[in-house]
Amino acid sequence: MTAFQPKDLGFAARVRESFAQQTVMATIGSSLAGIAPGRVEILLPYRADLCQQNGFLHAGIVTVIADSAAGYAAFTLYAANEAVLTSELTVHLLSPAVGERFLAVGQVLKPGRRLAVAETEVFAEKAGEARLIAKLIATLVRMQVPQEEGAGP
Amino acid sequence: MTAFQPKDLGFAARVRESFAQQTVMATIGSSLAGIAPGRVEILLPYRADLCQQNGFLHAGIVTVIADSAAGYAAFTLYAANEAVLTSELTVHLLSPAVGERFLAVGQVLKPGRRLAVAETEVFAEKAGEARLIAKLIATLVRMQVPQEEGAGP
Amino acid sequence: MTAFQPKDLGFAARVRESFAQQTVMATIGSSLAGIAPGRVEILLPYRADLCQQNGFLHAGIVTVIADSAAGYAAFTLYAANEAVLTSELTVHLLSPAVGERFLAVGQVLKPGRRLAVAETEVFAEKAGEARLIAKLIATLVRMQVPQEEGAGP
Amino acid sequence: MTAFQPKDLGFAARVRESFAQQTVMATIGSSLAGIAPGRVEILLPYRADLCQQNGFLHAGIVTVIADSAAGYAAFTLYAANEAVLTSELTVHLLSPAVGERFLAVGQVLKPGRRLAVAETEVFAEKAGEARLIAKLIATLVRMQVPQEEGAGP
Repeated sequence: MTAFQPKDLGFAARVRESFAQQTVMATIGSSLAGIAPGRVEILLPYRADLCQQNGFLHAGIVTVIADSAAGYAAFTLYAANEAVLTSELTVHLLSPAVGERFLAVGQVLKPGRRLAVAETEVFAEKAGEARLIAKLIATLVRMQVPQEEGAGP
Repeated sequence: MTAFQPKDLGFAARVRESFAQQTVMATIGSSLAGIAPGRVEILLPYRADLCQQNGFLHAGIVTVIADSAAGYAAFTLYAANEAVLTSELTVHLLSPAVGERFLAVGQVLKPGRRLAVAETEVFAEKAGEARLIAKLIATLVRMQVPQEEGAGP
Repeated sequence: MTAFQPKDLGFAARVRESFAQQTVMATIGSSLAGIAPGRVEILLPYRADLCQQNGFLHAGIVTVIADSAAGYAAFTLYAANEAVLTSELTVHLLSPAVGERFLAVGQVLKPGRRLAVAETEVFAEKAGEARLIAKLIATLVRMQVPQEEGAGP
Repeated sequence: MTAFQPKDLGFAARVRESFAQQTVMATIGSSLAGIAPGRVEILLPYRADLCQQNGFLHAGIVTVIADSAAGYAAFTLYAANEAVLTSELTVHLLSPAVGERFLAVGQVLKPGRRLAVAETEVFAEKAGEARLIAKLIATLVRMQVPQEEGAGP
């Protein structure tokens, strides 16, 4: 693991503030579980109303927490006047998304001036054991605030 | 567009039955909007409680409808005793997900004995105009029911 | 298909000049087969020395022509002092890459200020018939020349 | 790292035999650099005739070694009568592909009955230092030989 130096020491507060504005997180019941430079963890307890036809967590819901964990991992390394947008993501579903709760661990793979690449591993926890169920890799775009906000990549 | 021949003429009923079992769809308020051989459409009205920090629909929620549209597009071509699972998906976010409602149009690109590839275009509708905001491409796995159900790819 | 307006009417000459600098193209024997705003075609005759273990064209060689077709499709819409770099690509291999020759048809899906998304369909031609064997989708980064050249995204 | 148990103790000889049949490897000058259960390394010295317009190794050539490293990583865990085919791959290009030689290190992330997921990290070596320049993730399909050979996924 590379050690990253944050540009803004208030990165954890900025992540918490932005996460609180992601309304989908309250809707599905997920919460921040860890914040460090280049690394963010998001927790989601299993809910029967977020599933596909077999009772597994829907791949899109797995993507909600995996994408935000990757995006906020990049965001921890940004300056205070910068925002993050995902431009693309790939998710490989490795095992059925069954368990008591899910932990998405996002890590920056490559910080960049304009584009960052981050990966998220999603683990399903069941009876005290964690199993890797999905892996996301995403491209994140650094935006200036407020000039570019909402402008898209 | 290729014309596909369904193996089971009851494909539309099977899609509706399976979709009704995807509990996440009721939770986010999405519904089936079209079913044809190799093609499925899913509609999602905008909701302020499904967003990221800028008020755009969260990329994971876009993925919920895009992934299911692709999966059910493949599922329309399956026999009655077969089920579908996504093994991987890639989403390119082309424009901010803002609008009154979102339509995900899934199409089979390549049906296969075991693996199918399908694409979904997601459109945001606003003031009567539709704008392409995201594109998904996914690999779908054909499973036998009930022997393999829940077994993962 | 969207009609794109090029910023620089010399786009075809710029594509030809840049393609001539891609040394890999001469090495594998590929050539430009078509240039239009937002669209570029690249041709590769089959060669037995570019294959994987079954005699199919290697996926990486399919990617050589598919990636360049996507990149040059974006490049046709750039100004004269701009260059293109791929930041990520996804390739779905739909059928074995066998045939007499291969045609990669790249099209811009979304032009953007900084990032473009383009798709390439690769067809294998055999006995006068063309079969879709692969699909690429890629993110292309617009660079300023010469300030940013070689700097990476 | 998970420790994998090979089904066939002759896995290294099988990888070498198959690699020797990948004609593209001799054409571009690449060679096997390491074989272990679930892990394969491929080396490619820089060559000026395998580049894109800036003198960087072409993304498709990076993909040749990255895809084969991932595929053979999965192949090390197969039985003697099984073959491997890539069904899809995603490559993130993290830094310009410049250096004296390139090492692709493929690792199995998830072995599966039918589908495996493997990742490859590609390093550029220059003046004794290695830099991560690309990351691939791919889906590999297990095929029976000879019944399915050439049949595609």
